[in-house]
Parts: sequence; structure tokens; C-alpha cells
Amino acid sequence: MSGGEEILYGIHPVAETFRAGRRSISELLISGQKPGARIRELIAYAKAGNIPISRETKEGIKRLTDADNHQGVAARVSPYPAVDWPELLMAASGPCIFLLLDSIADPQNLGALIRTALCAGVEAVVIPKDRSAGPTPAVSKASAGALEHIALAHVANLVYIMKDLKKIGAWITGLEAAAKQSIYATDFTGTAAIVIGGEAAGLRPLVRRECDFLAHIPMAAAAVNSLNAAVAGGVVLYEAFRQQHEAAATT
Amino acid sequence: MSGGEEILYGIHPVAETFRAGRRSISELLISGQKPGARIRELIAYAKAGNIPISRETKEGIKRLTDADNHQGVAARVSPYPAVDWPELLMAASGPCIFLLLDSIADPQNLGALIRTALCAGVEAVVIPKDRSAGPTPAVSKASAGALEHIALAHVANLVYIMKDLKKIGAWITGLEAAAKQSIYATDFTGTAAIVIGGEAAGLRPLVRRECDFLAHIPMAAAAVNSLNAAVAGGVVLYEAFRQQHEAAATT
Repeated sequence: MSGGEEILYGIHPVAETFRAGRRSISELLISGQKPGARIRELIAYAKAGNIPISRETKEGIKRLTDADNHQGVAARVSPYPAVDWPELLMAASGPCIFLLLDSIADPQNLGALIRTALCAGVEAVVIPKDRSAGPTPAVSKASAGALEHIALAHVANLVYIMKDLKKIGAWITGLEAAAKQSIYATDFTGTAAIVIGGEAAGLRPLVRRECDFLAHIPMAAAAVNSLNAAVAGGVVLYEAFRQQHEAAATT
Repeated sequence: MSGGEEILYGIHPVAETFRAGRRSISELLISGQKPGARIRELIAYAKAGNIPISRETKEGIKRLTDADNHQGVAARVSPYPAVDWPELLMAASGPCIFLLLDSIADPQNLGALIRTALCAGVEAVVIPKDRSAGPTPAVSKASAGALEHIALAHVANLVYIMKDLKKIGAWITGLEAAAKQSIYATDFTGTAAIVIGGEAAGLRPLVRRECDFLAHIPMAAAAVNSLNAAVAGGVVLYEAFRQQHEAAATT
């Protein structure tokens, strides 16, 4: 690869990259003799955009992408277009949701959280450069291509971001199982930032200290008392979504 | 295996089987020379219950369980203790949530939904015997052992179950992306049954017709407009949970 190119794989990531129009695509790679309808659609996109199309074997795509689940399609693309944080912050106004992910290590979890964030209409997702999965092709695949549409900031220090958010009037809620307050007793109207910690150790101490509130998702059962990270993210993001839309409907 | 025995694998499924006390365990299988703290705890449980402990190689456990992610532990156990539907129905009273899963094919999705159902305190999960993953060891693993605690009915015909639920006064809501009504405009107080369809085709026509309401999870983004099945389940189950607890707090 030259110039920091990446190779995306899988039908959704490649299709959403075409649709989003944020990355340049220098080559489409296809395997198989009789491409199905969804791959034929990708071929049509490529032809319309004068993008070279190459035939590869399944094994060849697997070697290039280091992935088994490539579905017979890959694309050589420019690097992930992370957004500029100061610009993003300036553009934010009124009720909205920021999702801050502290140390999510598993690309599957990161992808699922990004997919959910896009569905719930978050303003932006922020992930730290250290101790976290990055916006890689594997995350694009796990997000069903949502990574290609979401506004994602990839930052050096999450604590600085939290201080910035406070300056624009955001209230920051950290999700923590041991917190006294429930997410249902937490106000997510206005500018809301939600912080979700890593699978293993949860919120890091400096990040935890910067939160305005800590809140838990109620657990009915004593036996198994934790949700999968992506499900927990869905529950809290949609509670924020619900509150913001109810508040908008009554004003 | 004799007498319908199953072999569970992974730390959570085996630990939760001991804790739940619903299945008899005839043998604990352990690999590795220096078991970690969580496996030593399982060994202590087995010793306390006079359950034979065998050493196996990692490869041996993989052969027995047909799984890579066994974490060096397996247990030979009695068949899954599905609950008797008529008994369960008689025991149900007052506000509660039933989760009906129509044709969830992927054991990972089924396990994640069962884990979420246990956390959200559902009364019972109902799955059909046909066209659905069953309560297998792979599902117990994917549920982090929640399968060993949940009340699960494994039934021949989901439509009969829906008719039964209506007789005890339940309102049945089917989750469907194209529905006009939002889950936030749906009343889940009282006896609520929620039906989630399969990953590919959604609710089957006969099941769909038996629903009192159809409701969707709102989507903010046009680009990627579907949640992962487990995340969707978490969002709707916790909305029902929220409504039932708010209703309880104001009466």
C-alpha cells in the first residue's frame, strides 16, 4: 500500500464508502465468477466513477485483507477521514449527544457501538488514540459500514475533550455499574455527553473524575448482572434519544 | 453421551450451571496445568458436590465440544431444563414482560438476547422448536451463562403461545422496522409481550398477524438504518422495563 491507503472489505463497508463519498477509492477488487446483485451494484458504482476493477481469488482477497469474512469484495481507499475536533465542537449547538468511548479494545464492540450511535443520531463519536481499537477496516465491517458515515474524532487525550465539552455547556455522564444513580434518573436533554469504559476495567480514573454524573443501567437479576458493551451502549444512547425527543415535543 | 446429556463449555456457562442448580452435573473436565482463580472455584464447587473431575487436553475438550472458545473447562450435564409453558403462564400475574423470539437463527444473537432478557428481568423467554437456534451449549456460552438462569419455554407453535398470553390479558407488541408507531408511543405497562423476528425475514406472517401492535425503534440516520438484533432487543426490553418501573413508582 502506498500513501497510507487502506483496504476495506465486505459488502456494507464498500457500499457505504461509495455512498458516503468521504474517501477516495482507487481500486475495487472482486472475486467469484457470478457476482450477486449487491456486488453488481458496487461494480456499477465503480464504473460510473471510473474506478479500476480487478478480479482476485477469494484467497487473494483474504491475503490482502487478513480477513475471512470479506464476502468476495474489497476496495483500496484513502485513510479514514476522522473529523477535526475543534471544528466539530464549534458546529455543535442545541440538544445533541456525544459518545465518548474510553478504551474499547474489541473491534466487534467498537463497530457495534458506532452502528448504534449512527442509528441513534449522535453528533459525534470520540475515541482515544491509545488503548482503544482504531477506525480500521475490521471496525468498518463490524459497524455494517456505519463507520463510513459517522463523525468520528480520534484524539490524543479524552480528558481534554471532556473539558472542551463542558465549555460548550455539555453535561457528561459516565456509565458505571456501581453508580448509585440510574440512567432513568439522569437528565440527557440539552447537550449530553455519554462516556462508556473499556470491556475489562471500565472507566479510567482520570476520565471517571471528569464526569459530571455517573449512572448505571438497572439490573433486575442478581445472577448475571452485566450487559454486553454494545447492548449497554444501545440502552443508554436510546434513553438519551428518547429524552431529547420528548423534550423537543413538549416545547 | 448417554441419556441426552450435553457438554457445556466455558467458564460462565459452567459456573452459572453450578449456581443455578437446575441441571445435574456428572463430570467436570479441566485442561491446563495451572488453573486460574475462576477455574479453581469451579473445581471447589465440584469437590463440594462430589462431582468427578477429569483432566483433558485443550484439544480433547475442543473435540468433545466442537468449540474453540472453551477456556479450558467443560461439564457433562443433564439436558437443558426448559420450563413448562402452562405452569409458567399460571404463575404470571401483574406487570411483567415476556420475550418471544421468532426464528432467531444465530446462536450468538440468541445468547445475547437471553443475557439481556435476564438483566431486564423478563418473566420468560419463548422460542419455537422449528426455524430457531435452540438452548444449546453454544447459546449458553453466548449468553455468558444467563441461559442457565432464565425461564425459557421451547414450544412447538408461537401463535398458540400468543393466544394464551392474550387470555391472561397480555398486550403483544411486534418489533418491525416499517411499523408506523414508535416503541416510545407504545404502552408496555401491565402484562407485556414483545416479539422479535428473525435476522433475515423479520416476523413471520402468522406471528405478525397475532400481534396487538407493531412498533419500530426510531432511526435518526437514513444511511445505516438497522440495529444489530441483540442491540434492538436491549433497546425495546429496557424501554418496557423503564415504563413498568415508572408506572410502579407513581401508583
